[in-house]
Amino acid sequence: MEKQGKPHSPWGENDQIGAMNYVTPEMLVRLFQGVKKGRIYDLSQVIQMGAPPIEPFMPPYVMSMWTTAEKTRKLLREHMNAVNEAGVLLERAEMTMHVGTHVDALGHFTIADEMYNGNSAQESIGDLGLERLGIEQAPPIITRAVLLDIATYKGVEHLEGGTVVTPADLEGVVNKQKVSIQPGDAVLLHTGWSKYFMTDNQKYVSTAPGLGEESARWLTAQQVAAIGADNMTVEVVPMEDEHRVFPVHQHLIVEKGVYMIENLRLDDPLKEGVYEFLFILLPVKFKGATASPVRPVAVI
Amino acid sequence: MEKQGKPHSPWGENDQIGAMNYVTPEMLVRLFQGVKKGRIYDLSQVIQMGAPPIEPFMPPYVMSMWTTAEKTRKLLREHMNAVNEAGVLLERAEMTMHVGTHVDALGHFTIADEMYNGNSAQESIGDLGLERLGIEQAPPIITRAVLLDIATYKGVEHLEGGTVVTPADLEGVVNKQKVSIQPGDAVLLHTGWSKYFMTDNQKYVSTAPGLGEESARWLTAQQVAAIGADNMTVEVVPMEDEHRVFPVHQHLIVEKGVYMIENLRLDDPLKEGVYEFLFILLPVKFKGATASPVRPVAVI
Amino acid sequence: MEKQGKPHSPWGENDQIGAMNYVTPEMLVRLFQGVKKGRIYDLSQVIQMGAPPIEPFMPPYVMSMWTTAEKTRKLLREHMNAVNEAGVLLERAEMTMHVGTHVDALGHFTIADEMYNGNSAQESIGDLGLERLGIEQAPPIITRAVLLDIATYKGVEHLEGGTVVTPADLEGVVNKQKVSIQPGDAVLLHTGWSKYFMTDNQKYVSTAPGLGEESARWLTAQQVAAIGADNMTVEVVPMEDEHRVFPVHQHLIVEKGVYMIENLRLDDPLKEGVYEFLFILLPVKFKGATASPVRPVAVI
Amino acid sequence: MEKQGKPHSPWGENDQIGAMNYVTPEMLVRLFQGVKKGRIYDLSQVIQMGAPPIEPFMPPYVMSMWTTAEKTRKLLREHMNAVNEAGVLLERAEMTMHVGTHVDALGHFTIADEMYNGNSAQESIGDLGLERLGIEQAPPIITRAVLLDIATYKGVEHLEGGTVVTPADLEGVVNKQKVSIQPGDAVLLHTGWSKYFMTDNQKYVSTAPGLGEESARWLTAQQVAAIGADNMTVEVVPMEDEHRVFPVHQHLIVEKGVYMIENLRLDDPLKEGVYEFLFILLPVKFKGATASPVRPVAVI
Repeated sequence: MEKQGKPHSPWGENDQIGAMNYVTPEMLVRLFQGVKKGRIYDLSQVIQMGAPPIEPFMPPYVMSMWTTAEKTRKLLREHMNAVNEAGVLLERAEMTMHVGTHVDALGHFTIADEMYNGNSAQESIGDLGLERLGIEQAPPIITRAVLLDIATYKGVEHLEGGTVVTPADLEGVVNKQKVSIQPGDAVLLHTGWSKYFMTDNQKYVSTAPGLGEESARWLTAQQVAAIGADNMTVEVVPMEDEHRVFPVHQHLIVEKGVYMIENLRLDDPLKEGVYEFLFILLPVKFKGATASPVRPVAVI
Repeated sequence: MEKQGKPHSPWGENDQIGAMNYVTPEMLVRLFQGVKKGRIYDLSQVIQMGAPPIEPFMPPYVMSMWTTAEKTRKLLREHMNAVNEAGVLLERAEMTMHVGTHVDALGHFTIADEMYNGNSAQESIGDLGLERLGIEQAPPIITRAVLLDIATYKGVEHLEGGTVVTPADLEGVVNKQKVSIQPGDAVLLHTGWSKYFMTDNQKYVSTAPGLGEESARWLTAQQVAAIGADNMTVEVVPMEDEHRVFPVHQHLIVEKGVYMIENLRLDDPLKEGVYEFLFILLPVKFKGATASPVRPVAVI
Repeated sequence: MEKQGKPHSPWGENDQIGAMNYVTPEMLVRLFQGVKKGRIYDLSQVIQMGAPPIEPFMPPYVMSMWTTAEKTRKLLREHMNAVNEAGVLLERAEMTMHVGTHVDALGHFTIADEMYNGNSAQESIGDLGLERLGIEQAPPIITRAVLLDIATYKGVEHLEGGTVVTPADLEGVVNKQKVSIQPGDAVLLHTGWSKYFMTDNQKYVSTAPGLGEESARWLTAQQVAAIGADNMTVEVVPMEDEHRVFPVHQHLIVEKGVYMIENLRLDDPLKEGVYEFLFILLPVKFKGATASPVRPVAVI
Repeated sequence: MEKQGKPHSPWGENDQIGAMNYVTPEMLVRLFQGVKKGRIYDLSQVIQMGAPPIEPFMPPYVMSMWTTAEKTRKLLREHMNAVNEAGVLLERAEMTMHVGTHVDALGHFTIADEMYNGNSAQESIGDLGLERLGIEQAPPIITRAVLLDIATYKGVEHLEGGTVVTPADLEGVVNKQKVSIQPGDAVLLHTGWSKYFMTDNQKYVSTAPGLGEESARWLTAQQVAAIGADNMTVEVVPMEDEHRVFPVHQHLIVEKGVYMIENLRLDDPLKEGVYEFLFILLPVKFKGATASPVRPVAVI
């Protein structure tokens, strides 16, 4: 860990957007102008009750109707003499922002009391949310993405739970797919694990193939802005060293300000051999939240 | 209303995406390639407790911490002998999906028992959400947007609550701004009302300038895909006819399958005289929900 | 079913308290004056996360801290210059009122559109709760209780899931225990099933020993005011006739206005051979709710 | 404060029930046998949406239907071939346990890091609730109560907000009403303030007449078990010394283990001149919660 307790961001002591600083307007112009087909791939899962939680770290997702058509029509008739039979439908949800496909805020993790850029957890966490590094500070994550199909590279439908994706694997896929990783990229890992999302949630969350610490460092050395995967943690579960819990989260978020994107569904571009694209992910600005559910898309 | 109780979408009896059908890949290619500056404008409000609700139609937004760094570090130390002091932060929220800047699902409204495309409310609404026309059916809303600055056209900082935006107003602004409305466009209305968002919520929700029925029809005649505004309802409050409640919602959503976007913050592009742009809004796929909180952006 | 769609209560067309009408002040005086030891037995379970739900009929119970001592002390110091270091602790819970030990409101069940005393479900149920027969209408349930130890009578630690408690069983226990059932009584059934509460919730809720329809009628014929059990449903699961779901709830609540008390913990009085006592259960007046979590006690 | 950081309860270092230790079975026998009329007075308010919160210390109360009769009948017909048209009604609520009439747990408050009986807040508070001193540790609060009608003694319908009830006032009322305060008693204060509960919540919570520090000490010197009032705080708001916030809570809960009961409705016994009675309050055992909503009753 670099400079514990002091600002360590290359982008200044007040920086709250982390590795998205690598993305420049010039890169964006090239990316947008590079869109040739007007084709959009949805990279997200449907969020519904029973969405897989990592217990006890996540509360469940609960949704039900709040107002329904028939009752609001009655209400509007009786209280406002309305004649146009307007049925209004709204729901209520109880949820964490880490439900389904989501992006972590830079305030989602700590190393002891330290958060990204030397912020103190003690001072930054209020009872009702983060006072610094909340998801409302995250910029629109619009950048180039490289989709690395580790599963196919390894010749399997999906890697087994607990399989560590190594730097050699990443290098191998990059070479095989003839892609390059550039500063500011989002790197998206296809492990095949999303097969178990909502089909076997117990399996989906209790283990997962994913990044080890070395691979995480290999990626940050290349100055990526975001790393996503088709599983719950991006990093391998169980961890490589049982006494170091979520070390990849600590490295990516706290030390490097890299955005982690979880529970992606990457099948659609893969089916068509699409490995590089304009990636668009728009975190909703929930003040003080440690993540946002999102619907990222790929555009080519 | 056309063909009550029968499918009425021009895009077929199973259509659930409505007016977004107007947007074609060719349009998208032109739009993306038209990006010249790589500049992104955020069009959304920060969502926080106290976010303005329309009572009694909306439940409040409530957020608090679920796990905090210090307690999870202790838990991981004690239960997993973890040595790396990983502090995990997650929140819980109680909310409706109509909180803050959001897009309505085509299942958000009815005319009597009828929903978009002839769906029956009775049959489509379950206790735990919509079984048809939920927000998970909405596509990524990526299209051209025209931003109409009604307030400036009228020579005011903001229109007064209750002011009906007429077809003549819309036409006047279009001419003044030298823009055109095309099929598939998102039309975004700047009334100046967002000035009161979180500064005077009571005022913000109790009245608002906005569309009347005639203007809504004027816009749908031009085959727009989405209509947004910098207020809570898009349509004028109080309504033009006190016995017709939310008639614009009924026309846009139920009759025309047009997406309504509420609580926008349109100041940033306006400050720079930007009236036409690539508009990107990505509804999160909450199964059966009647809306999604979003973070739309403009790109030029 | 008697007089469907018309008031059928022996206590008048506006009656909302049902079989608690059997309890008179005179009975209460005798009961209170009959207390000889001043001994109180707690008959309730601890309610905590993971409390057994009957899915999909019950939402989960979720609780977490809202304000914590350290943060409120800081807030009070900084915003009010407080010097007395007051740490304030509050929690938030997401729950149904049917969590843990609870009593059902007379509005908890219907037979088709009919509720207790001929009320129409259509007319009595609002989106935000019952407009009639909510738990706030229930009186304090203070009456004589008879505790029937069916398990011991049958010579088992607990009846197996699916075992129907018959009128003959009830009569047998009454005789063996030398007790009598009187109008206005609460009858509490010990089946031994609470052994699985929070120890094997899956088992606890998927089956249960309990009342069949005939036994329910045998009890209501004796004009009991309330029936409770040490399981989730009072009635047997699976039901006797697989095409008649929760018929005992329908009979007791809708037809007879009898209060059902679920998830009791009856071990303490049983250990001391206490079968008759003053029973006190105080439903919290949650307006429009279909139940209340409670902490009933026995006093001797 | 006595013996900060060390157990200070007269009932031992593991005591978690506080001043309810004063109540003995012998006292209970006398009390129960003293019931002459079998008359029950309800001392609680109806809990509903809009229930007054002390912001920002309390989250709002939100309730809506979860399952409704019509939809569950359909579900049971379609999925279980049910023929008996069972409509099942359940609600969901989002709430704090301090809503409406409620009793505080001994873990509700701290003085710096210290909780009742020398417990450390740091060590006793988990993210998901109290690990010690939660409301599930509170016993049934069944004891003698003395109702002191301060308002009438002062010749007013209600004391004004901010009025400190002094020891002299308490003594005066005791004498006037010819009652006595005995060890183990619940003392209930009628200030008339409940007049504003749900009629003017803003007024109800922003100020209140109530106990000052001296009166709190006067009462604990008499070894009372519980103190309740017909307002939100029992203690006066604003406080006597603006830099000492909630000092009465600190004294009663942390130092003395006395149960505080808030938002009582005391009108019914007062109307009939009933000042002494058997008081029954049964806290629901929500594990780790800092309070419980309750429905206390008086019996004579």
